[in-house]
Amino acid sequence: MDRRTPLGVAVIGTGRMGTDHVRRIDRVVSGARVTAVVDLDAERAEAAAAGIDGCTAHTDAAAAMAAADVDAVLIASSGPAHEAALLTAFEHDLPVLCEKPLTPDAASALRVMEAELALGHRRVQVGFMRRYDSEYVKLKALLADGRLGRPLMLHNRHRNVAGPPFFTSAMLITDSVAHEVDATRWLLGHEISAVTVLRPRPSAAAPEGVSDPQFVVLETDGGALSDVEIFVNCGFGYQVQAEVVCERGTARIGDGHSLVTHTAGRWGGTITQDWTDRFAQAYDDEIQTWVDATRRGEVTGPSTWDGYAAAAVCEAGVRALREGGRVEVHMVEKPPLYR
Amino acid sequence: MDRRTPLGVAVIGTGRMGTDHVRRIDRVVSGARVTAVVDLDAERAEAAAAGIDGCTAHTDAAAAMAAADVDAVLIASSGPAHEAALLTAFEHDLPVLCEKPLTPDAASALRVMEAELALGHRRVQVGFMRRYDSEYVKLKALLADGRLGRPLMLHNRHRNVAGPPFFTSAMLITDSVAHEVDATRWLLGHEISAVTVLRPRPSAAAPEGVSDPQFVVLETDGGALSDVEIFVNCGFGYQVQAEVVCERGTARIGDGHSLVTHTAGRWGGTITQDWTDRFAQAYDDEIQTWVDATRRGEVTGPSTWDGYAAAAVCEAGVRALREGGRVEVHMVEKPPLYR
Amino acid sequence: MDRRTPLGVAVIGTGRMGTDHVRRIDRVVSGARVTAVVDLDAERAEAAAAGIDGCTAHTDAAAAMAAADVDAVLIASSGPAHEAALLTAFEHDLPVLCEKPLTPDAASALRVMEAELALGHRRVQVGFMRRYDSEYVKLKALLADGRLGRPLMLHNRHRNVAGPPFFTSAMLITDSVAHEVDATRWLLGHEISAVTVLRPRPSAAAPEGVSDPQFVVLETDGGALSDVEIFVNCGFGYQVQAEVVCERGTARIGDGHSLVTHTAGRWGGTITQDWTDRFAQAYDDEIQTWVDATRRGEVTGPSTWDGYAAAAVCEAGVRALREGGRVEVHMVEKPPLYR
Amino acid sequence: MDRRTPLGVAVIGTGRMGTDHVRRIDRVVSGARVTAVVDLDAERAEAAAAGIDGCTAHTDAAAAMAAADVDAVLIASSGPAHEAALLTAFEHDLPVLCEKPLTPDAASALRVMEAELALGHRRVQVGFMRRYDSEYVKLKALLADGRLGRPLMLHNRHRNVAGPPFFTSAMLITDSVAHEVDATRWLLGHEISAVTVLRPRPSAAAPEGVSDPQFVVLETDGGALSDVEIFVNCGFGYQVQAEVVCERGTARIGDGHSLVTHTAGRWGGTITQDWTDRFAQAYDDEIQTWVDATRRGEVTGPSTWDGYAAAAVCEAGVRALREGGRVEVHMVEKPPLYR
Repeated sequence: MDRRTPLGVAVIGTGRMGTDHVRRIDRVVSGARVTAVVDLDAERAEAAAAGIDGCTAHTDAAAAMAAADVDAVLIASSGPAHEAALLTAFEHDLPVLCEKPLTPDAASALRVMEAELALGHRRVQVGFMRRYDSEYVKLKALLADGRLGRPLMLHNRHRNVAGPPFFTSAMLITDSVAHEVDATRWLLGHEISAVTVLRPRPSAAAPEGVSDPQFVVLETDGGALSDVEIFVNCGFGYQVQAEVVCERGTARIGDGHSLVTHTAGRWGGTITQDWTDRFAQAYDDEIQTWVDATRRGEVTGPSTWDGYAAAAVCEAGVRALREGGRVEVHMVEKPPLYR
Repeated sequence: MDRRTPLGVAVIGTGRMGTDHVRRIDRVVSGARVTAVVDLDAERAEAAAAGIDGCTAHTDAAAAMAAADVDAVLIASSGPAHEAALLTAFEHDLPVLCEKPLTPDAASALRVMEAELALGHRRVQVGFMRRYDSEYVKLKALLADGRLGRPLMLHNRHRNVAGPPFFTSAMLITDSVAHEVDATRWLLGHEISAVTVLRPRPSAAAPEGVSDPQFVVLETDGGALSDVEIFVNCGFGYQVQAEVVCERGTARIGDGHSLVTHTAGRWGGTITQDWTDRFAQAYDDEIQTWVDATRRGEVTGPSTWDGYAAAAVCEAGVRALREGGRVEVHMVEKPPLYR
Repeated sequence: MDRRTPLGVAVIGTGRMGTDHVRRIDRVVSGARVTAVVDLDAERAEAAAAGIDGCTAHTDAAAAMAAADVDAVLIASSGPAHEAALLTAFEHDLPVLCEKPLTPDAASALRVMEAELALGHRRVQVGFMRRYDSEYVKLKALLADGRLGRPLMLHNRHRNVAGPPFFTSAMLITDSVAHEVDATRWLLGHEISAVTVLRPRPSAAAPEGVSDPQFVVLETDGGALSDVEIFVNCGFGYQVQAEVVCERGTARIGDGHSLVTHTAGRWGGTITQDWTDRFAQAYDDEIQTWVDATRRGEVTGPSTWDGYAAAAVCEAGVRALREGGRVEVHMVEKPPLYR
Repeated sequence: MDRRTPLGVAVIGTGRMGTDHVRRIDRVVSGARVTAVVDLDAERAEAAAAGIDGCTAHTDAAAAMAAADVDAVLIASSGPAHEAALLTAFEHDLPVLCEKPLTPDAASALRVMEAELALGHRRVQVGFMRRYDSEYVKLKALLADGRLGRPLMLHNRHRNVAGPPFFTSAMLITDSVAHEVDATRWLLGHEISAVTVLRPRPSAAAPEGVSDPQFVVLETDGGALSDVEIFVNCGFGYQVQAEVVCERGTARIGDGHSLVTHTAGRWGGTITQDWTDRFAQAYDDEIQTWVDATRRGEVTGPSTWDGYAAAAVCEAGVRALREGGRVEVHMVEKPPLYR
C-alpha cells in the first residue's frame, strides 16, 4: 500500500485489551490509525471511537470490515467470538491480528486453519506477544546461536497478584499457561507431546475450589522438559520468568536483569556498547513527549535556562580542568519565565 | 492544532543524531512527520529526505522554516550552528527541540535566552534526554516523594567504549559531563555553585595529550555534592550510572537492575504489579511489527498453526488437571503453508 | 567433659571427605583433636595420621574406638561400611557424626535406628551439612517465622561440573538428590509421600547410558511440591539453589546473593547492620593467620610501616577537613625492613 | 614452637573489640588459647578471664607479658595506650597483633617503628583486617594478575547505621577512613601523596556540629585517585564497598555479590566449581557445632530418623527412575525418641 496512507485498522472488542490496543494504535504506533471499532454494546463502541478522528463505531464486525477505510483487523473480543470474526475477515481477505487464544479449543482452531488454507495464503498473526518481549527475543537468539548447546529443560514461573473472580482451575491452563505453551514451542522449536499437571495444596488466597498454584510439566517431541509454576493469586507481584538449561550452560530472563547466563565458570550479562542502545527508550519518549506537547500548544521539558546553566557550569569546568583547583560558577538571575 | 494532521517537523542537521531523529519521527513516533530536512551539504540533505513522502531537502534553515508544512523545528546540527537556527525559529515563532548543548558557551546561551524572553513565551526544549529515561524518571520520583530524606551526595559514572578521534580533554566536560550537570540540577533541584576537576593518570587507551578519565566534583547551592567519573575510552562498554545518597537511604540506577534502593535495613526494588507494565514494550512492538509487515503486504509472527497447537496442548492440560497423570497431545500433520 | 581437654575424635575412612575432616578438626575447629584415624589401607591411615601429634593409625575401627583418648567418632567411609561402624560405636556408647547416607538402603537404616533405640538415647548426627549452610539457615528461619505464609512449592537446582566416572543414573538420586530430600524435609517440616522422576534427553556430556539431567518431583504429606533439577555433568559450575514459594511471597538462596525475597511488591534482601556481621570472616581469618604464622615463628600481614603511613595520611586528612583544600602527605623514607 | 602446645595469647584491653577477640581465640580459632587478659579495670579483666581455663587477669600489661605461658600479645586497648604496650612487648621480644590505629598520630607511630627497627626484626602485625576479607582478597588478586590493566580510580563507600556519641568530625577520618587509607595503599600498591576533604551539608541524623557525611579524595604517588564516601549516621545499614576502575575494566565488591567485574562487553562473576568451595562454611560449622554439642554431652542435628527417611525416599526415587510414573514412599512410624 501507499506509504503515505496510514494503515486503517478495525478493532473488534473494546474490553480492557481492545481499549488498550485502540490507544496504542492511536497514540503510540507509527503508520496506523483506528478507522473502526466494534462492540456488541453500542455505547462502549461509541465511547472507544470518541476522540479519534475518522473512526466509526459498530456493533457488527462484518459491517466494519466492509468499510472502505479498513485495511486490517485486530480481534480483541472474547475467545468464543474469535472464530466467527476470523472467518468474516477471511471473506474480505483482510490481514488479522487475533489476540490469544486463537479459539478456545482445538476443533475450532482447526476449522480456522482450514479456512485460511482454503485462502491459500497466511492472513493471521496470533497475539502471542511474548515473542516480541525484548528479553524473550534475546533468549531466543542465544538458543539459536547454539553457544550453550542443545536445550534440555526450561523452567518457567508465571505469577499474578490476583486472578479475576471468574477464574477456574482450568483457566490457569487455558488462559495463563497458554503463554508458556507458546513460549516453549517457540524457544525450543519443538512440539509438545505430553502434559502432566501437579496440584500442591491451594494457597489460602485462592478462591474456594480453585487449584492455585499448579505445577505443569510439558514434554516435547525433541526430548526436552518444560515445567511451569502458575500461581495466579501470589499476592506480591506480576512475574514472568524463564530459565533454560542447555548442555553447556543456562540462561535466565524476567528476573530484573535483562538476560543472565551461566556458562564456563562465569555468570553475568552483556553491557550495552552504545548510547543508541542504552537510551533508545529515552530518545523515543523525549521526541514523542515533545510532539504531543507541541500538538497541544505547550512547551515542556528542559528549558533555555537549563541550557544556559549547563553552559555556565561546563565553562567553569573547563577552567577548573585547565587551571586546577575549585572554580565558582556565576550565573545571571533566573528570569520568571523559567521558574 | 488539528489532531487529524500530524505535526510537520523540520530537522536541521543530518549527521548521526539528525539522521536518527529523522528515522524516529518517520517510523517510531506517533502524530508527527518529517516535512523538511536541512543540511549545508545538499547531497546529505537529499539522502535524508529520500523515501519520506512529502519531505523536502534544504541547505538553508530559514527557507525550510518558512515552508507552510513546517510546524516545529528539531535542531541537530553542530553546537556552534545552534544559535543562528534558534534565532531563525524564534522569528517564525516555531517550537524547537534543540539538541544539547543549547549553545557552546554561556554568553551565546544568554543571547538565546534574551531572544526567547523577548518573544514572551517559551519556545525551546533542550535535548537533555536523560530526563526521559525511565530509570532517571523513577529516581526523580523517588527523590520527590521525600521518603529517603534530603539528598546529600550523588555519585555518577559515565563511561564510553571509545571517544571519537577529535575528542579533547575539555570535551569530556562540555560534551559528556554536560549530561551529569543537567541530571544533577534536575534530580536535586539545586543550581551548581562550584566545580573541581581531578585528573588521575591517563589510561593507556587515551589519545596522546588527552586527560581521560577525569573525576569532576560539582558543589550545589543546596549543599549537596555530585561527583562524576567520566571515562570515554574505558574499552568495555557504555555505562551511565547514578547513585544518590540521602539522609535515610540510597538509590541507584543504571546498573542492570532498574532502581535499587537501600533503606531501613533492606536493599531491593519493586516488582511490577501488572502485565500492562511488564509487557508494555512487547505489546507496542508486537503491534508496530504487525502494522509494518501489513503495510509491506506480508504476514509474519505466530501463525494459525501456533494458535491451533496451543489449543491442542491446553486441551490436554485441562484433561491432565481433571484426571491426574500424564496426558499425550495429538495434533494433525502440519500443513506446508506453516512450515 | 572437662573444658580444658579437647574432644578426641576417631575419623573412620580417609578418602577425600575423611581427609578433609581430619584437616578440619586438626586446623580449623576449636576444642577438638584427631586422636585416631582408621582405614582398611594401613598406608593411607598412616599418611593421614602423620604430622598430627598424638594421633594413631588403625585398620580396624573397633580397635580405634576402644582407645582411651577417643571420645567421639566421625564416620566418613563408604556408605556400605557405615552400618558396621555405627553398631560398633553404639557398643562403646560413643557419639557419632556419620557422613550421609546413613546407610545405603532403608532396611539397613532401620536396623541402625533400632540399635540406637535399644541404647535409649540419641548418639548419631547424620552429615546433612546443608542444615549448617548460612543461606539455608536463613531460609529455614524465614519459613519458621511465618511472614511469607505456608510454603506451597520448593524449586531446587543441583548442578555439578562433572560427575565421577562411576556415577550411575540411580546415583543421581541416592548421592545427589539425597541432599534435596533432606533439605525439603527440614525446610518444610514435612515427610515426603511420593516421588516422580522425569528424564529429558541426556546431555551430550553425560556418559553413555546415564540419564543426566533428571527432574525429580517430591510430594509431601503437608501438600507441598518440591521439584529438583539434578544435572551432574552441567560443565559450567557447581550450583545449589533453592526457591521456596509461599502463600505471600518467595525466597531464594544459592544465587550469589545471600537470601532474596519477593513479597508485597518488592524484591530484595537485608543489609548487615554491624561490622561484626559483615567482617566476621575477616576477623576470624586475621587472627587464625596470625596464630598460624606466629607458631611458625613468622611475622606477616600489615606492618608497622603500614600503621605509620595510615597515621600520616589521617593527620593530613584532619588538616584538610579543618582548613579546606588539598593537603600534601609527607613521610620518612621507607626502611628496608618493611620492603 | 612445639605444635602440640597451643599459642598462649595475652589480650590487652577488654572493651568491645578485646572481648570479641578473647571469645574468638577461646572458641573459634584453632591452635591458640587466651592465657592472660589485661584491663585497667580489674573487674572487667576478671570477667573476661572467667570461664577460660588457665587464663589469668591483670591490670598491668607488663606483668601479663612477663608470664611464662604468654607467647604473643594482642593489643585491643584504646589508641593512645598502644605505644606503651607495643614498647613493653618489644622488651619481651613478643609477637604482637595491634588493633588499628597503630598509634593516634604519625610521630608516635614513628617512635614505635624506630623501636622495632632497633630490635632488628618485625614483631608487629597491625589490625587492618580488610586485607583478610575474602572479597578484598579476591579484588587484590584480580588487580595483581593485571588482566584489567593498571588501576586508575578507586571508589569507596563506608557507611554505618549510627556513629558512637563521642564521634567527632575528625574521627570520621582517623577511625573510619583509616580503613580505606590502608585498603587503597594495599590494593593499589601506591603511597598516598595528598588528601582533600569535601563536606556536603550534614545529614539531619548527624549530631550537632559533626560533618557527616564527608567525601574524601586521596591522590596516590602512582597517579591514581581514591575517593571515599564516609557516612557514619546513614541510618539504614553497615556497608563497605569498593569499585576499582582500571584501564580495561572495573571490579566491585561489597555489594551483596562477591566480586563483580565489567570488562570486554560483559559484567558478571565466577561460579564456584566445587562443593568444597561452595559449602566450606557449612562443613566447618557442622563439625564445630558437633564438637561443641558433644563436649556439652548433647546430640543435636539431623538424626538417625532423618537418615532413615532419606534412605526410604531415595529407594522410592530409584524405583520411579527405573519404572517411570509416581512411586509412593512408605515408612515405619516415627519413634518418640526422634520427635
